[in-house]
Amino acid sequence: MSGTHVVWQEVTINKAARAAQKKQRPFVLWFTGISGAGKSTIANLVDERLFEHGRHAFVLDGDNLRHRLNRDLGFSDADRSENVRRASEVARLMVDAGLIVLVTFISPFRDVRLAARQLFGEHEFVEIHVDTPIDVAQARDPKGLYRQALGGAIKQFTGIDSRYEAPEAPEIRIDTTRLTADASADAVIDYLRAEGLI
Amino acid sequence: MSGTHVVWQEVTINKAARAAQKKQRPFVLWFTGISGAGKSTIANLVDERLFEHGRHAFVLDGDNLRHRLNRDLGFSDADRSENVRRASEVARLMVDAGLIVLVTFISPFRDVRLAARQLFGEHEFVEIHVDTPIDVAQARDPKGLYRQALGGAIKQFTGIDSRYEAPEAPEIRIDTTRLTADASADAVIDYLRAEGLI
Repeated sequence: MSGTHVVWQEVTINKAARAAQKKQRPFVLWFTGISGAGKSTIANLVDERLFEHGRHAFVLDGDNLRHRLNRDLGFSDADRSENVRRASEVARLMVDAGLIVLVTFISPFRDVRLAARQLFGEHEFVEIHVDTPIDVAQARDPKGLYRQALGGAIKQFTGIDSRYEAPEAPEIRIDTTRLTADASADAVIDYLRAEGLI
Repeated sequence: MSGTHVVWQEVTINKAARAAQKKQRPFVLWFTGISGAGKSTIANLVDERLFEHGRHAFVLDGDNLRHRLNRDLGFSDADRSENVRRASEVARLMVDAGLIVLVTFISPFRDVRLAARQLFGEHEFVEIHVDTPIDVAQARDPKGLYRQALGGAIKQFTGIDSRYEAPEAPEIRIDTTRLTADASADAVIDYLRAEGLI
C-alpha cells in the first residue's frame, strides 16, 4: 500500500557506525516456543548477563507489544502473523541502531519466522527454540492461561486450538526439562561466544 | 483487541539502567512539518552532532517506515494516524532501550501528535516544528512530489488535498526561510544543552 512516491531517505550515521560506537556486533536472539515454555525468563537472564558484560541490548517482549504497538491485533492466524511481522521490523530497526535485540514471541508459524530471518544478515539472526513439552508447560501454567484455555475461556490458544510449528533447524534448542533457566542462559551466552558474536 | 489474558512481562534491566550504561538521558526529538520542509535534513545533521558527542541516537524516518513496518498503510486520515501511532510506539520502545530517538514524520494531525507526547515523560518529548511555507516547499520540491500532487498524480498529499495542523506550542520552531540547515541543527543542540538534556 505504500505509495510509489515514498522515497527512501538515506541516513548519514549507519548501522556499522552505531555498532562501533557501542563496541559490539548487533544481532537478534529470536526466542520461540509455546506459552509457559520459559522464553521470557531465559531471555531476561541472558539480557542481564549481556548487560553485565557491557553490551547494549533490549528485550522485545511479545506480551508487552500486544499491550501497545500491536494492541489492534487479535489471535487469528492473520493477526498472529502480523504481530510477528511488526516485531521483526522493530527488531530490524533496533539492529540498525546497533543494539542486540532479544525477541520473545511465541511466533508459532514457520513461514513467518523465516520471513523475520530474511530481514537480517546471515550472522544477525539466532533462532532459539525454547522447547518445553505442552504437558510440562500446562503443569507449570505460570499465568493460569492453560487452565483458562482448556476451560474454553480463552480461544485460539497455541497448543490447544491453535498450532505451534516447531523449528526444524534452530541455531539453539533448549530442552527446559533438562536445563534450569540459569543453565539455559549460560548455554546461549556460550553459543554467542563460540560464534564470535560477543 | 489484545486479550485480557495477555500478562505484562516485567524486565530486569530497565530504562534507567540502559540509559546509565549509555551515559545519557533518553528522549525523543519529534520533527513535524510538511513534505519538503527539511525535517530529514535537519534531523540527520542533529544526529551527526549527537554521534560526534558520543550520544547513542537513531533516526526513525517516516518515509523509511512506510517501506517496511508501515507498508500496509495508505494516506487516508485513519492510516496517517495509525502510521504516527506505530512510530510513537517504536520511539517509546527505543527510549526504553536508552536511546535518543529522532522521529521525522509529517505527523499532520495535532491530536495524534498529542497522543504520541503522552507516551513519554515530561522531559522526554521535544516537539520541533520545521516550519516552511508551502510555497517555499513547493519551490524546493526535492523529490518532485508537489509537482505530481498538483498534477493529480498523487492524492491525499499534505498541504494540497490533506490538511496540516501546525503545532501551537512546540518546544522548538525552526523557520527554515531564515536559518540554514546547519544553523537549524545548531539551534536544536543549543536547546538540548540549555534544557540539560545533553
